[in-house]
Amino acid sequence: MLTRSTFCRWRTSLRTLTSSFQALSSPSQQYQQTQRCHFLPLLRKMTTIPSTTPGTTLLRQPVKIACIQLSSGADKPQNLSHAASKVREAAQTGAKIVVLPECFNSPYGCDFFPSYAEQLLPSPPSPEQSPSYHALAAMARDNNIYLVGGSIPELVPSDNDKKPTYYNTSLTFSPKGDLLATHRKVHLFDIDIPGGITFKESDVLSPGNSLTLVDLPEYGRIAVAICYDIRFPELAMIAARKGCFALIYPGAFNTTTGPLHWRLQGQARAMDNQIYVALCSPSRDMSAGYHAWGHSLVVDPMAQVLVEADENETIVTADLDGASIEKARTGIPLRTQRRFDVYPDVSQEAQTGSKP
Amino acid sequence: MLTRSTFCRWRTSLRTLTSSFQALSSPSQQYQQTQRCHFLPLLRKMTTIPSTTPGTTLLRQPVKIACIQLSSGADKPQNLSHAASKVREAAQTGAKIVVLPECFNSPYGCDFFPSYAEQLLPSPPSPEQSPSYHALAAMARDNNIYLVGGSIPELVPSDNDKKPTYYNTSLTFSPKGDLLATHRKVHLFDIDIPGGITFKESDVLSPGNSLTLVDLPEYGRIAVAICYDIRFPELAMIAARKGCFALIYPGAFNTTTGPLHWRLQGQARAMDNQIYVALCSPSRDMSAGYHAWGHSLVVDPMAQVLVEADENETIVTADLDGASIEKARTGIPLRTQRRFDVYPDVSQEAQTGSKP
Repeated sequence: MLTRSTFCRWRTSLRTLTSSFQALSSPSQQYQQTQRCHFLPLLRKMTTIPSTTPGTTLLRQPVKIACIQLSSGADKPQNLSHAASKVREAAQTGAKIVVLPECFNSPYGCDFFPSYAEQLLPSPPSPEQSPSYHALAAMARDNNIYLVGGSIPELVPSDNDKKPTYYNTSLTFSPKGDLLATHRKVHLFDIDIPGGITFKESDVLSPGNSLTLVDLPEYGRIAVAICYDIRFPELAMIAARKGCFALIYPGAFNTTTGPLHWRLQGQARAMDNQIYVALCSPSRDMSAGYHAWGHSLVVDPMAQVLVEADENETIVTADLDGASIEKARTGIPLRTQRRFDVYPDVSQEAQTGSKP
Repeated sequence: MLTRSTFCRWRTSLRTLTSSFQALSSPSQQYQQTQRCHFLPLLRKMTTIPSTTPGTTLLRQPVKIACIQLSSGADKPQNLSHAASKVREAAQTGAKIVVLPECFNSPYGCDFFPSYAEQLLPSPPSPEQSPSYHALAAMARDNNIYLVGGSIPELVPSDNDKKPTYYNTSLTFSPKGDLLATHRKVHLFDIDIPGGITFKESDVLSPGNSLTLVDLPEYGRIAVAICYDIRFPELAMIAARKGCFALIYPGAFNTTTGPLHWRLQGQARAMDNQIYVALCSPSRDMSAGYHAWGHSLVVDPMAQVLVEADENETIVTADLDGASIEKARTGIPLRTQRRFDVYPDVSQEAQTGSKP
C-alpha cells in the first residue's frame, strides 16, 4: 500500500533542471498537476510533461551527439587537459552534445576515489575545491556545447569528526559554462562474479537519491545517469515518460559484464522506451587495475545501434532527430497502449523539481 | 497520486493459481501482507512470495522446457492432431514443460479469429464448445507434462443482441489434464509500420485485464503472457518479483519486428529480471497472410540465448535449473539493490488471487 511518506520520498526523489518546459505544459496538464499535488505545499515547482502525447516534438531540432571514449591515467591535470583536447575535437565534428566517460579524471577504483575526489558544494566550488568543475565549465563554454561531464569522485566533508562522504557524480554544463545538473550515481556498483569480477563501490562511495533530468532549451530534455544505474529500468522508464529524447549514461562496464550486457542494456532501454540511448565508456587500459569494456555506442529509438566503438580511444558521433522518435512511437504505439489499469505507472509519482 | 480505486484495480488485476505457495510465505511476510491489505476484505487469498530473498530456491528441481515451433494451417482438427503429435515428440525429449505457439489452432489474422474462436466459460467447456481445450488437456495428461497451450481465439457470447466478445487466450494444463490458468492477452497487437506491417487485433479482439502467474508444484512459479505483452516490461518485472523462475510467451512476431526485437525482447526481460525466458513462435509459412518470424528461443538468467530455432518447424529444448538463477542474482545482486525509495516498485501493489 502506498503511504503518504512513501509518496513524499518518491516526490522528492526526482531532481531536474526545469529551465524552459513551461511552454510544454498545457492548461489541462497544469490542472491535473494541481489536483495531484494539493497536499504537497512544500514543492516549489513541478511540471508534468506531455511527453507521450502523439505528435509532441521531444527533440526540437536535429542534433549531433559525441561520446568521447577517453583514455585517462593517474595524472589528473593531464586527464583534464586531454579531455579538453578531445572535447574540442568532438565539437569540431559539429556535435552540440558531448559526453565524457565515468571517472574521466582519475583511474577507476575504490582506492582512487578519495584521493581524486573534489568538493562540489556549495556551488560553484572554488577552483581549488574542484579543478574538474572549472575545467568542464570551460570546455563547454569554449566549444559552445552541452557537456555531460562523465563523472568524478565527489567529496562532501563532514561537519564534525566523522569521515567524509564520497559520491560518483556527473556534472552537466550549458554552452555558456553554467552548471545545469548534478547526478550522483543512485545504484552503486557492487557485484561479485566468481572467475569474473568483484567490485564494491559502496566500500567507499555513498549513493545519490535522485533521478536527473536536464533541459537543453534548444533541443529538449535528456536524462543523465551513471553506469550501473542503467541496470535498473525504472530510471529509463520514468525519464522517457517525463519527456526525454535521450538517455545518457557515462559508464565503465568491464570485460566480464561488457560483452554480456553493455550493448544489450543500451538496446533494451531504447526499445522499451522508444528513445535514443548513448553509453560513453573510457577506453581500455590493460595496464590499469580496472579493464573498461569500451564500446561506447549510440542506439536509436528502434533499438538499432547507430555507432559503436571498439575498445580503443576514439570519438563516436551520431545524428539524433525527433522524427525518428515519433516514427518509432507511431509505428509501435506503446505510449498509448500501456495498461496502467493493470499495473502501476512508475513515473506517475515521480514529480520534477527545479534544482540543478 | 494513488487513489484507493486505482489500488483496487491493481489489486484485482493479477490473477494467479496459488496451489502450493503457502509453504514459501514466512510469518513476517504474512504479517506484512495483513498490514498492506487491511482494507481489502473481499480478497479471498493473497500471497506475497519472498522471491527475491537470497538463497530462495525459485526452481525446486531442474526441468527441461520445450518450445514447439508449430506449423499450422486452416484445418483446425488437423492443427490439433498435429499439435498432439508434436507435444508427444517434445515430451519424449524429457521435457516436462511444453509450450505451443500463439494461435496454434488457426491461421493468425483478424479475419480468422471469429470463425476459429471457442467458448471457454463456464469452465470446463463442453467438447463442442471447445475442442481445443479438450485436445490440450489430453495432450498434457497423455504425456504427463505441464502444457502452456499457446493461444486460441476465445469466444464469449453476448447475453443479449450485442456482438460477442473475442480474446486471444492461453490455457495452461497440469500433467493430470487439469486447467491451471487462463491468460487473456493484455496488450493487443496494434501496430502500423509503413513499408513493414500493419495489424490491428483490436478490430476484433478485446484485451484481458490480468497478469497470469501459474504454480507448478514440483518446480515453482511461471508467468504466461502472449506475444505483444512482452513489449511492456512491467509484466516481467512483476512476475519476477512475485517469485517466477521463468517467463513464457507464446508469440508470433513477424518478419518486420522479428529481426528487430524478438531476441532482444527475450534477452532484455531475462537480463533485467534475472530469470529464464522462453518465446514460442509458429513456424513461418510464406503462403499464409501473416509471416511469423519463428526463431523460438530460450534465454537464461544472464541473458544468454541457450537455444534458438530458425524459421522452420522444429522443437527447441533447454534445461533450466535454479542454481543458474541464484548464481546470476548473487553475482549481480539487483534484487537487493533496487531503490524503491527513489522510484516505486511496480510489483508492490500487485497482489495474487486464487482463481485459475
